[in-house]
Amino acid sequence: MNVDNLLKQLSTKEKIGQLLQLAPFHFNVDLKSEVAGRVRSLNIDTEGIFLSGSVLGIRNAEEMLDIQKKYLDNSKHQIPLIIMADIIHGYETIFPVPIALASSFNPRMAFETARISAIEASTAGIHVTFSPMADLSRDPRWGRVVESFGEDPYLAGVLAANMVKGYQNDGIEKVGNLAACVKHFAAYGASEAGRDYNTVDVSRTALHNTYLKSYKKALDAGARMVMTAFNVLDGVPATINQYLLRTVLRDLWKSDVVTISDYDSLKQVLDHGCAENEKDAAYRAIQAGLDIEMASVCYVNYLEKLIEEGIVDIQKLDEAVLRVLNLKKDLGLFDNPYKGASVVREKELLRSKKHFEISKKIALESAVLLKNEKVLPLNKKQKIALIGPYARSKSTNGPWSWHGNIEHNKSLEEVFVNHKINLVYTSEAESINQIEHSDYDQILKADMVVLALGENTRLSGEARSRSDIKLPNQQETLVKMSHTLNKKVVVILFNGRPLDLTNIIESDAILESWFLGSCAADAIFDLIYGIANPSGKLPMSFPRSVGQIPVYYNHLNTGRPLLETNKNNEFLSRYLDIENTPLFNFGYGLSYSSFIYSNLRISQLEFDVDTQLRVSIDVTNESQIPGYEVVQLYIRDHTAQISRPVKELKKFEKVWLGSKDTKTVEFSLDIHDLSYYDAYGNEIYDSGKFTIMVGSNSQETMKIDIWLKGVKHDYQKQSSNQSS
Amino acid sequence: MNVDNLLKQLSTKEKIGQLLQLAPFHFNVDLKSEVAGRVRSLNIDTEGIFLSGSVLGIRNAEEMLDIQKKYLDNSKHQIPLIIMADIIHGYETIFPVPIALASSFNPRMAFETARISAIEASTAGIHVTFSPMADLSRDPRWGRVVESFGEDPYLAGVLAANMVKGYQNDGIEKVGNLAACVKHFAAYGASEAGRDYNTVDVSRTALHNTYLKSYKKALDAGARMVMTAFNVLDGVPATINQYLLRTVLRDLWKSDVVTISDYDSLKQVLDHGCAENEKDAAYRAIQAGLDIEMASVCYVNYLEKLIEEGIVDIQKLDEAVLRVLNLKKDLGLFDNPYKGASVVREKELLRSKKHFEISKKIALESAVLLKNEKVLPLNKKQKIALIGPYARSKSTNGPWSWHGNIEHNKSLEEVFVNHKINLVYTSEAESINQIEHSDYDQILKADMVVLALGENTRLSGEARSRSDIKLPNQQETLVKMSHTLNKKVVVILFNGRPLDLTNIIESDAILESWFLGSCAADAIFDLIYGIANPSGKLPMSFPRSVGQIPVYYNHLNTGRPLLETNKNNEFLSRYLDIENTPLFNFGYGLSYSSFIYSNLRISQLEFDVDTQLRVSIDVTNESQIPGYEVVQLYIRDHTAQISRPVKELKKFEKVWLGSKDTKTVEFSLDIHDLSYYDAYGNEIYDSGKFTIMVGSNSQETMKIDIWLKGVKHDYQKQSSNQSS
Repeated sequence: MNVDNLLKQLSTKEKIGQLLQLAPFHFNVDLKSEVAGRVRSLNIDTEGIFLSGSVLGIRNAEEMLDIQKKYLDNSKHQIPLIIMADIIHGYETIFPVPIALASSFNPRMAFETARISAIEASTAGIHVTFSPMADLSRDPRWGRVVESFGEDPYLAGVLAANMVKGYQNDGIEKVGNLAACVKHFAAYGASEAGRDYNTVDVSRTALHNTYLKSYKKALDAGARMVMTAFNVLDGVPATINQYLLRTVLRDLWKSDVVTISDYDSLKQVLDHGCAENEKDAAYRAIQAGLDIEMASVCYVNYLEKLIEEGIVDIQKLDEAVLRVLNLKKDLGLFDNPYKGASVVREKELLRSKKHFEISKKIALESAVLLKNEKVLPLNKKQKIALIGPYARSKSTNGPWSWHGNIEHNKSLEEVFVNHKINLVYTSEAESINQIEHSDYDQILKADMVVLALGENTRLSGEARSRSDIKLPNQQETLVKMSHTLNKKVVVILFNGRPLDLTNIIESDAILESWFLGSCAADAIFDLIYGIANPSGKLPMSFPRSVGQIPVYYNHLNTGRPLLETNKNNEFLSRYLDIENTPLFNFGYGLSYSSFIYSNLRISQLEFDVDTQLRVSIDVTNESQIPGYEVVQLYIRDHTAQISRPVKELKKFEKVWLGSKDTKTVEFSLDIHDLSYYDAYGNEIYDSGKFTIMVGSNSQETMKIDIWLKGVKHDYQKQSSNQSS
Repeated sequence: MNVDNLLKQLSTKEKIGQLLQLAPFHFNVDLKSEVAGRVRSLNIDTEGIFLSGSVLGIRNAEEMLDIQKKYLDNSKHQIPLIIMADIIHGYETIFPVPIALASSFNPRMAFETARISAIEASTAGIHVTFSPMADLSRDPRWGRVVESFGEDPYLAGVLAANMVKGYQNDGIEKVGNLAACVKHFAAYGASEAGRDYNTVDVSRTALHNTYLKSYKKALDAGARMVMTAFNVLDGVPATINQYLLRTVLRDLWKSDVVTISDYDSLKQVLDHGCAENEKDAAYRAIQAGLDIEMASVCYVNYLEKLIEEGIVDIQKLDEAVLRVLNLKKDLGLFDNPYKGASVVREKELLRSKKHFEISKKIALESAVLLKNEKVLPLNKKQKIALIGPYARSKSTNGPWSWHGNIEHNKSLEEVFVNHKINLVYTSEAESINQIEHSDYDQILKADMVVLALGENTRLSGEARSRSDIKLPNQQETLVKMSHTLNKKVVVILFNGRPLDLTNIIESDAILESWFLGSCAADAIFDLIYGIANPSGKLPMSFPRSVGQIPVYYNHLNTGRPLLETNKNNEFLSRYLDIENTPLFNFGYGLSYSSFIYSNLRISQLEFDVDTQLRVSIDVTNESQIPGYEVVQLYIRDHTAQISRPVKELKKFEKVWLGSKDTKTVEFSLDIHDLSYYDAYGNEIYDSGKFTIMVGSNSQETMKIDIWLKGVKHDYQKQSSNQSS
């Protein structure tokens, strides 16, 4: 297929159609039906529908085969539809939500999540998934932190890249692989006050050093599409933001990926007050570099006119269409428009035993043990009272799991029963008040109270922001009740965001399970009974209170930092009523093993632009219990043209350590690990002191200083940057 | 005095001395004493001290005369010291704190506060005050909101400008006037998480459209100095930020004001990680355009060497010194180095009856009546129980009132007694628990409970950030107690920031008095007994909870705004658990009068670049009670190249309306009222629809649309802006 020739055969109207993405129901429409109302509200006719270029969301192979056939039956040029869908953390087999996956600190788990998702979703003839979401998240009020990889650009980037590799695997042309669409470009996670869709306002230096890195890593891993964000940046909606879509993506990063708006986000440019009408929106979008318009029709209705009027150069349209056609070609759709869609393969692959086993394996690595006062692991002989809204619930899939059916999941109670645990009492009670006084006798018989607490699945995800991030007060009372009854209490949390746990911190153990997917209950059981050993680490700080937000480990130092040594100084950057530190810090998570770090060493003390520095550390498992440890390497750049974070994660490795084992973990650093970006996205490095920190989490590390030599401050450059 | 000639006579070392500002104790030092330790810790010798150019903070005329004489006795060139000090809201007569002053919505009150401050402070020989603070504040956690004019750029700018005019009056050369130093340049109020000194990160578009405007208005009013902020901007500390100090201040604004660091802020550049050492800091500062270094010695110790080494051009030093010498000349110090300092005038002017009367007048306009369920004004015959930590307290001066002595103030109890109010019970109790059960009999006799609640003075101000902005829980219990006793309750608040009042919102009346200064108790008495009529309006939103921060009226619309008409839509920008709106909105405040707005009209529906649009509205006082009303005019620019706020205050006028009076208030708008700024600070206007809203607060307005014609979107320009 020669797409350049194909492009030449298309009329302007046909070209524009390639830039339209519709939902499946548009193709099944009886124009007199209720559904047609939705079509008419979109202001599009049947001809327009059958000129569109892609479809958003599909339920199964049958639907795909039907729509593609219907479409091709009506298509002059026989250009197949691309089928795209939100496959976020699994298709029918559901994996841990992304914030949980990030807690695994294991790129392989990201790869496997994506791999199985691709294998399953491609049976429905889906070709592109709107994943990974690489939006850096520092505000737990924001509901979409559940879909994010947390607060660190490097961790988020590595996981996003590995999801891309898992989806695209050995080539998007092959059956069983998906093309990845990284989203939401850019800085969507910085939504002000943690309110979804709200204003984003960040400097260009923060944009390049903090927010853009993770998208870039996904693109470097080969992601074929980029979805724009709902928010504004520099006051301009991302969907029509020329700096993002042209300057950064095309000019700086030299990327030729297909760009796509988020749902209706081009039309929303009118609400943003950045276009007078849909024609104006279409103009700004094509100028900015938006290729595909999802679920609105500014292009379809106005782009041809804009070209006829000489306002838009047809070259801009052609470039966009060519990118779309090339993607179709690379997906192999011209060879087989029905690629992947197979009712037979659906039956064979969806929710297979193997897929569930992999889901459980990933879940085991994704839970984070936050506290353990010698109560975990539990002993199977202990008598257990299992209480709380998640005691009998199977709702462990979390948001964005539309193909996941929770009926295939197990509840904690089921798993406890399967393992013949002596459950002296079980209740879904959400508060003390729901527990009958007579039940106390039962609870008193227990050796241990296990509380399965958390947020409803519908409290996180898109448009699910909360101003209060505590557990419901009623649930907090269950912890108090347990203590009143003089019972040790293990809390298992099911939630989609970092919570303020201050009021339940007196629990004897806390396991953060997020939403672990199809096999959550099995995994949790294995973890709390010591069949498996927790190894997750927090990808996002847990604040002491909502009044401390944003709190994140990789902050700048300020000019008046609070230190151990200066606490009596009145004029420091701190609160009067709360610590500056979070309750649980980034990278933190306990194990049943106990790991000792020693012998941090480096290959050389001085560093230049060609150095490959080797950093080694010995990690010993002092306990009898084998387990994984996530060894984390941070750096601090002490002096630079712009203020640099007090810590930045640069490397990590998850290692398995048998009983009493010692392993040497070696990392390699080069100049790019010491660099940062100026306001234009140019890579900069400054000579001077750097500290390398290696340890078990962002607060507990061993340290060593190195010196970058021979790269002088370029003040002239700095000055020209600043003045423009 | 020819300062150019003078400059030529100075050695490099002498020039650099002019850029150093020291505290008074440096000049009184016995080098063996304890104080000398502080001098030595500053790393400066006696010669260096007597080359310095200005002094920071002085207690009285005697000290000034002594230091200036000692200095000149040791000075080769007889260049007098400038005496600078923090005169923030009064010198010995204390006026309402700035957030309260802003609540007056009365520029004349700002002028008078500054005028009396200047008259009093200049008796000590003070020449410059570090005021006004024009930092826009949207985060009530930040302790310095008490020193700010709140969340609106226009209101803050008008008040800052009027303070400058009040200080500088008919010329800084005259006795009784001060030169004004506007601070903190720039965007200090955006300190992340409301934690003082913390990172500031804003886009250039937000910088120019939101944060810089109020400083600019102060400079346009003639302010002679600018103080840099503690924070970074674009990662670069404001004190060495070339974009701020050179590009914006010198190139864009064509200003020749003297710039000065904040206390120690140049040395703090090392903590920010933006200089390797003090020499490096000195280099970056002089390049960036910092003139005077306050309380650190990077310039003194390293600037000469940097010039000798050819790294810094002496021209940069000369420009800075010339600005300082010109300021000294303009202040008349070469004619009279002791200008203003007079023990006789101190006695005559400080805390004069007239000054106290003016302070009370301003206080009367600065309190904000937030709620009144027909309980206010009180009747002098009513029996009153006066309870709370501020019942007997005289601490109404608020932060930054170091010359103010609260012993000259009255407590509420004193004023009630003076007015022969039947006080059946008074207590400083901070909670129910502090009230004896036997006291309840007394309280039960009262017709009304008056609760004087609030924050300790030391909970707001510099380095006084709070993560929790509620009243202490104990104080909240006093409201509950009153209701339990079936008593009506009037709450008077003393505090330095918007508080979360959700837990006391059931009070029958709430008067926000902030810290009203020397005459607070008298003013509050007059207001609650109807001797005066409240007229203050909120300059900052009061959030429903800390989890809603930042919440401010002049936000952008987002692409998915929550409207009255779309509440059933699931995918909107909102919280699940709280309204988007604040508890009390910007511009809100009650009166004992009731004002009706009618007949909004404009001189023409279409607008072009030369239009002077007249907007008129009739305001009627329907009540028998005369009072002030603040008539507020907002605009909305519906379409622009960047998203514009849903509302922006553009004009306001405080009018007096007698019983049953109607007045027509007329505003005039020109093209600059419809403009905004691009990322470079260029003024832009776009044709299209604007809505003009006039009313009593930011939520209750009458509306009319106008159309700006003949100014076409300049997409080319937009595109070049965005791509750089």
